[in-house]
Amino acid sequence: MNSSQDAKPSNKTGDLRDGEVAAALPEHFDASVYFIGRIRTPWKTRKDCPKNAREARETGAVCTIELDPRWAAGLKDIERCTHLVVLYWMDKVRRDLAVQVPGHLGKGRGTFALRSPVRPNPIAMSVVKLVKVDGSKLDVIAMDCIDGTPLLDIKPYYASTDSIPDAVTGG
Amino acid sequence: MNSSQDAKPSNKTGDLRDGEVAAALPEHFDASVYFIGRIRTPWKTRKDCPKNAREARETGAVCTIELDPRWAAGLKDIERCTHLVVLYWMDKVRRDLAVQVPGHLGKGRGTFALRSPVRPNPIAMSVVKLVKVDGSKLDVIAMDCIDGTPLLDIKPYYASTDSIPDAVTGG
Repeated sequence: MNSSQDAKPSNKTGDLRDGEVAAALPEHFDASVYFIGRIRTPWKTRKDCPKNAREARETGAVCTIELDPRWAAGLKDIERCTHLVVLYWMDKVRRDLAVQVPGHLGKGRGTFALRSPVRPNPIAMSVVKLVKVDGSKLDVIAMDCIDGTPLLDIKPYYASTDSIPDAVTGG
Repeated sequence: MNSSQDAKPSNKTGDLRDGEVAAALPEHFDASVYFIGRIRTPWKTRKDCPKNAREARETGAVCTIELDPRWAAGLKDIERCTHLVVLYWMDKVRRDLAVQVPGHLGKGRGTFALRSPVRPNPIAMSVVKLVKVDGSKLDVIAMDCIDGTPLLDIKPYYASTDSIPDAVTGG
């Protein structure tokens, strides 16, 4: 194991909003990940970032996925895909909240019913449109994360299994 | 770091099919994950498993996500969602292939243009239908993974950003 600060998440319990619930984090990790690249976006701070993927897409901003060149051969045939699933690591957040009170909601909601970056494994998922392949770089529309966010994975998006137009949340 | 075998992926290079390309794995990991539960499916061996998510869904099999009870509060409001994104860890695979030759394809394709479990970070993603919430257990249709697969994350599925009905792969 390396000494990356990412592997030492904070577990502070004194900093909860009313209604939030923190869990005791497990004593050890179970597996480890490589950062396989970085995501370049126009958003330099969390405050600059679009609030969510829809808002990011609406900006039309072209973001660049810079894959570590060691993995460049892994992009063979990627241009067959109009859309991709991108997994990335939200490395600046606590990992112990089970119930969160998002500002826009004003009440508690379970972590697994939210897309908040605060979660036991801070892996974010975005569906993006692939616009250009240039060596080990991919231009996509759009990501909602901060510039320099670590990349975990890129997958082809399959409408047959990944697209559920009539899925409902809330109501 | 714990001594889990999951953190020591194989890096054998002598076992490649014609056309496959292995990358040198980085010397260290960058971050670590917790297994936050297990996925219970009817498929006891890799041979039993449906070939993909579409096939799994067509079986109509109800699978059960057993969340570690420490995270049970994180399911608050999850019943608002008709569909969920599930992330899980494919813990039985090599991680170093950049180009793979899937049996059904018979030629090399980049890892990032495939949904194969073989990838630098073996994180799989499935979109499932939520059918029942019972304490820290969720019944869903359907998963294509082997019984006992480690769970990494559950997210609400948003049609507004996650559903791209006209996405194309291949052609």
